[in-house]
Amino acid sequence: MLDQKSTSKIILTGDRTTGPLHLGHYVGSLKNRVQLQYTHRQFLLLADAQALTDNAEDPAKTARGVFEVALDYLAVGIDPKLTTICVQSCLAALPELTMLYLNYVTVARLERNPTVKEEIRLRGFERDIPAGFLCYPAAQAADITAFKADLVPVGADQAPMIEQTNEIVRRINRQANRDVLVEARALIPPVGRLPGVDGKAKMSKSQGNAIALSATADEIRAAVHSMYTDPNHLRVSDPGEVEGNVVFTYLDAFDDDKTELEELKTRYQRGGLGDMVIKRRLEEKLQVLLTPIRERRKQLTEDRAYVLEVLRTGTEVANSVTQATLEEVKAALGLFRF
Amino acid sequence: MLDQKSTSKIILTGDRTTGPLHLGHYVGSLKNRVQLQYTHRQFLLLADAQALTDNAEDPAKTARGVFEVALDYLAVGIDPKLTTICVQSCLAALPELTMLYLNYVTVARLERNPTVKEEIRLRGFERDIPAGFLCYPAAQAADITAFKADLVPVGADQAPMIEQTNEIVRRINRQANRDVLVEARALIPPVGRLPGVDGKAKMSKSQGNAIALSATADEIRAAVHSMYTDPNHLRVSDPGEVEGNVVFTYLDAFDDDKTELEELKTRYQRGGLGDMVIKRRLEEKLQVLLTPIRERRKQLTEDRAYVLEVLRTGTEVANSVTQATLEEVKAALGLFRF
Repeated sequence: MLDQKSTSKIILTGDRTTGPLHLGHYVGSLKNRVQLQYTHRQFLLLADAQALTDNAEDPAKTARGVFEVALDYLAVGIDPKLTTICVQSCLAALPELTMLYLNYVTVARLERNPTVKEEIRLRGFERDIPAGFLCYPAAQAADITAFKADLVPVGADQAPMIEQTNEIVRRINRQANRDVLVEARALIPPVGRLPGVDGKAKMSKSQGNAIALSATADEIRAAVHSMYTDPNHLRVSDPGEVEGNVVFTYLDAFDDDKTELEELKTRYQRGGLGDMVIKRRLEEKLQVLLTPIRERRKQLTEDRAYVLEVLRTGTEVANSVTQATLEEVKAALGLFRF
Repeated sequence: MLDQKSTSKIILTGDRTTGPLHLGHYVGSLKNRVQLQYTHRQFLLLADAQALTDNAEDPAKTARGVFEVALDYLAVGIDPKLTTICVQSCLAALPELTMLYLNYVTVARLERNPTVKEEIRLRGFERDIPAGFLCYPAAQAADITAFKADLVPVGADQAPMIEQTNEIVRRINRQANRDVLVEARALIPPVGRLPGVDGKAKMSKSQGNAIALSATADEIRAAVHSMYTDPNHLRVSDPGEVEGNVVFTYLDAFDDDKTELEELKTRYQRGGLGDMVIKRRLEEKLQVLLTPIRERRKQLTEDRAYVLEVLRTGTEVANSVTQATLEEVKAALGLFRF
């Protein structure tokens, strides 16, 4: 397996460690990662340093998140024998590369980054942007290049970040006069984003419209029963809308019997199918999906030593990979080395 | 000696490694450092990472400079048994602390830093400021705090940098809810800046108005003989100006016989003292000062292994000091640690 994978493409991905993950993460990324680990050399970064860029007032939250997200990874089926799980703040090569790259990118270019612009707007930072936040495209470039990642799974809105990384790659390679760094390609996930249970475009813990991967059976039931459907579908006999109906959007993501699902949609649109029927169906699918995840997660919570050992081992591997890249970059640029 | 010094104040200082040092450095800082090493715990930072912030097009220059400046330090009498000489780019805790601090300082605050503003103007960067250059007050704060320096010898124009460091210190201490970092104090040198041999305010290699510490006897002679004196002092019998006369400014710095020097100044002002007399006097003082420095420097150049060993040992010591600070800061903020 390892021999086969040694010639495979390298994937770098991960999550900001601001709290446990939810069903939106499962659909958007975790499920794919479980597949990709069999065919790619995959690194998962627990991005606590990046989480700090907009959680400077609560650093301990980023530390708690490391353990929470690691639990989620292992619970959904990320296999530490196949995937390297590592802690960003414990990889000293990353800030070194970041500081190096910051010399090769202008302030104006960072300010023009569309993702940074949008995030600044969302967070209401305006002129009080923490400098670390402005610099995070360079930090992300350090993450990606330190692992020599070929592929970076990102949402379509994150594509400008990859473009900025590749600009830095080309600048460093030009300075070094050889291809010491590798350009990365965005891997846009096949399934779109899962909406919140309230119908809002994005599932988010802070919006209170998320289903955590650790949700109890009761929480899952309550979440599904509160779901936004079609506000005009008042009686069972009324025709109902499928488009924008969160229950159907979720069934599209979680119900594998597409034929039956199409029949249900037709009946719902015609009238004569109540919300309770489709909600019960969705609830069952989610209970089947989430029960084993919750149980594995609970077991792992009780075996903190094992989880820490996984992180320690993964971080050691990641340290040797990223330090090797740093040394290569320093040598290629002709920087001082003993 | 070490026991006595263990309770002494800590000094952090150093030089950007952009080339060999000159007589201006000797007067402004090196001479003081040779004294301070007997009474303080002194760290000298070979600041190659900082040198890169405005030498990104020529990284190898910052690497060559490491060895050049180290030679200068040892040649003027910095004793590696008393002073820790270390290489900035080999101290991984520094970029880690920098990236951490960048989360606690706004872009607007960095842009308002008077020293940064002035340097941006001098370098003609305007909107094309490299991000690393904008961030360098945070990097300097990392340098100073990582060593827990009490005192930082700086020119008066650098005082705002120390103020910015102390702002970061207070911000981190407030976040940590205890004094994990130490506020530093600027140590303004007793002697002002040495002008260039052409009379310009600043001696600088790039301006071609400097006398290198490695200058040969002929170079010293030529430099002194080319020195700016009083353009109206055409004949020996003419009265001459002492104010703004570079030869007298240098004699003030290098001639210890203040009585004789005052007599010469009086004779020069009155008329009847030629430039050649004062230039010969200055030349002799400089030859006496620089000959042993040049010779020690030459010996050391031929013993590269010894110089590298000094740097290696110093950098090891500095690594353990700065890593300890980093760990303390991480713990105090509640960041993730294994």
